[in-house]
Amino acid sequence: MAGVGRADLGILGGGQLARMLLQAATALGLDVAVMEQAADSPAGRLTRHEVVGAWDDEAALRRLAGLTPTIILENEFVPARSLYLLESWDVTVVPDRTALAATQDKLHQKARLDEAGLPVPPFRPAGGADDVREAARDWGWPLLLKRRRNGYDGYGNRVAHGPADIDEAMAALQGPLDRPAAERALLVEAYVPFERELAVMVARGCGPTSATVDGDVDGGMGGDVDGGGKDEVRLYPVVETVQRNGICHQVRAPAAVPDDVAARAASLARAAVRALGLRGVAGVELFLSADGALTVNELAPRVHNSGHYSIEACGASQFENAVRAALGWPLGDTSMVAPAAAMVNLLGAADSPARARGLEQALDVRGAHIHLYGKRQSRPGRKMGHVTALGATPDEAVAIAAEAASRLTV
Amino acid sequence: MAGVGRADLGILGGGQLARMLLQAATALGLDVAVMEQAADSPAGRLTRHEVVGAWDDEAALRRLAGLTPTIILENEFVPARSLYLLESWDVTVVPDRTALAATQDKLHQKARLDEAGLPVPPFRPAGGADDVREAARDWGWPLLLKRRRNGYDGYGNRVAHGPADIDEAMAALQGPLDRPAAERALLVEAYVPFERELAVMVARGCGPTSATVDGDVDGGMGGDVDGGGKDEVRLYPVVETVQRNGICHQVRAPAAVPDDVAARAASLARAAVRALGLRGVAGVELFLSADGALTVNELAPRVHNSGHYSIEACGASQFENAVRAALGWPLGDTSMVAPAAAMVNLLGAADSPARARGLEQALDVRGAHIHLYGKRQSRPGRKMGHVTALGATPDEAVAIAAEAASRLTV
Repeated sequence: MAGVGRADLGILGGGQLARMLLQAATALGLDVAVMEQAADSPAGRLTRHEVVGAWDDEAALRRLAGLTPTIILENEFVPARSLYLLESWDVTVVPDRTALAATQDKLHQKARLDEAGLPVPPFRPAGGADDVREAARDWGWPLLLKRRRNGYDGYGNRVAHGPADIDEAMAALQGPLDRPAAERALLVEAYVPFERELAVMVARGCGPTSATVDGDVDGGMGGDVDGGGKDEVRLYPVVETVQRNGICHQVRAPAAVPDDVAARAASLARAAVRALGLRGVAGVELFLSADGALTVNELAPRVHNSGHYSIEACGASQFENAVRAALGWPLGDTSMVAPAAAMVNLLGAADSPARARGLEQALDVRGAHIHLYGKRQSRPGRKMGHVTALGATPDEAVAIAAEAASRLTV
Repeated sequence: MAGVGRADLGILGGGQLARMLLQAATALGLDVAVMEQAADSPAGRLTRHEVVGAWDDEAALRRLAGLTPTIILENEFVPARSLYLLESWDVTVVPDRTALAATQDKLHQKARLDEAGLPVPPFRPAGGADDVREAARDWGWPLLLKRRRNGYDGYGNRVAHGPADIDEAMAALQGPLDRPAAERALLVEAYVPFERELAVMVARGCGPTSATVDGDVDGGMGGDVDGGGKDEVRLYPVVETVQRNGICHQVRAPAAVPDDVAARAASLARAAVRALGLRGVAGVELFLSADGALTVNELAPRVHNSGHYSIEACGASQFENAVRAALGWPLGDTSMVAPAAAMVNLLGAADSPARARGLEQALDVRGAHIHLYGKRQSRPGRKMGHVTALGATPDEAVAIAAEAASRLTV
């Protein structure tokens, strides 16, 4: 739709999330600009509108702003000043600067959720070991230490099982003393003895829309709709995420939980997104305790690993809805096209140039949808791709996706 | 998977079929090279491996061959010499030169199908008006006059209703006298008074595969599988195509025909692809007469408009299977994920820079999957995009897709 020299949409970030956003935008006929810190990123190589620069590189940001009036954030690590600059140049950034600021600092995020009356684990800032010891007196062990910013895939978290763990955990998370104070800042949380982890992707419109709101909620697999007009919100089904070593390993959709739990999870997710002022697509992670209690763990202000299954399993994927939302368009159908779906991540096995071994064997698994992100370099635990499958039950879908994933080394 | 300097796969052609092939290849982590006659084509702009040159531009072909060991043809208009060159440089071209030569000349194609015992309309070369008059004596009026090469979307066909139509129809199809003789060559066919037009997309593997062949055929919506090993063939469901002015307007999947008709159509499609030696993905168009007789109309040696619905409606789309086949990988599941699906084309309304009007209104139709091809220029009747919908029945799916399409002007 844009001319050769302009893009319809920009993405700040060029990794796999940006790549799948670009793919969804491309299907809608859009030209996409991508800004990433290095050239030839998974998304950057799919457009001629590739901008290379650090997240705080003003000249690069200006080039991006010159290409497109609307930008989606692929990650929450962009400095506030960069968003301020983009918005000062009349670029619409989704989510906006205020919502990102409330979300990207986990201490602020939890405070905001807490103020809104949403259930969050007890938390407080951890400026030093004393704060952690005090937390232990109040809440007992174990405790969770977290970076306030820039944590992902478990890289920003440590469990402290007792006083002996505190110094090592804090030092590991804070990093070298010469890092900026904001990046060394930590918080400490009570450990929630959860039984399951749930997640809900929430799509929230950004503009005046002409959405027809039908308000139906068809059981656990249905898209949940409300709002309309200027605050259209559509929820994807509540899913269960299975983590390994702090990294999302498997997603099962819908989560095998009682209807009332799913309904409460959906309601909390919606309220959390509103409390933080997020628009576009956001992922809400929740803990489900044995007694049925739900706690909001954290929010990602963007498309999220727990929503990848939606590419095949839902009327409109989380990526398509992120694009629709950013452009002020009506949101697409979030309900599932099959009774169940599952996703299994493909994590890097070793430090080596990326090469998918066993791909033909994996492609031979009927019903497995294999996604590879085109990363040039593999690393242990790095997200290199994922496999999705549909099924009559989550177990059936997991079996297919896991079989294909087991045949692949990436 | 390829390094920065190389691509895993090339596409000769840069239009919407190439764009959707590239999208499918990208999901599988592949880097794609695209060659098209002009820069900034719908597919060419999605890769840094963009080669610009005419189909017979040897230097451009050599650049493409330098980028990738495997090439898929997007169209059947590539001169035989270009394929000869590519193959002489050890590039695998799908379909191969021999199969393309047998298919791209409609006279050869029909002769080959006829020799294989497949039902085709009576046909003969039409060197001059006398040949057409003789055909009328043998088969009666009306007659169909066709270009032997380079016809598409009805641009290469004319119906002659009586002797008075012959000269005008031939002149229009042949074009100026200074065109090469091969491009002016015509054939004449008996007109088949069909009741419906059917189509079957056939995926045929190209390499040693480890495919598990389960051989199940689950009714009209099921993927039909046979072969395995070196000749794996998977059929998409038999669909009905509805043409308007010689251009595919609507596709309904599966076709509402008795099981025995669907089975015969599938069997003819499989035999036709084998008779022409095609590999990769091919589209077989058939006529269904009122008495239940089937006639093979023609084959497209590539992904085809009648298979676009497979992106949302089938386990693996025609585009994914074209990529899998070309790389010698096992084919993906061709069965449908919903009881029915429909596709409606979005055709250009006027000569003007492309702009989708009514897009937000169309996006507001629940269940409509809107695809726009990113063409810069619209023309009356030009394929600018399509809409797919799933449903409990083809009628239900058509209603959704047609509603969205009716809201859009492209």
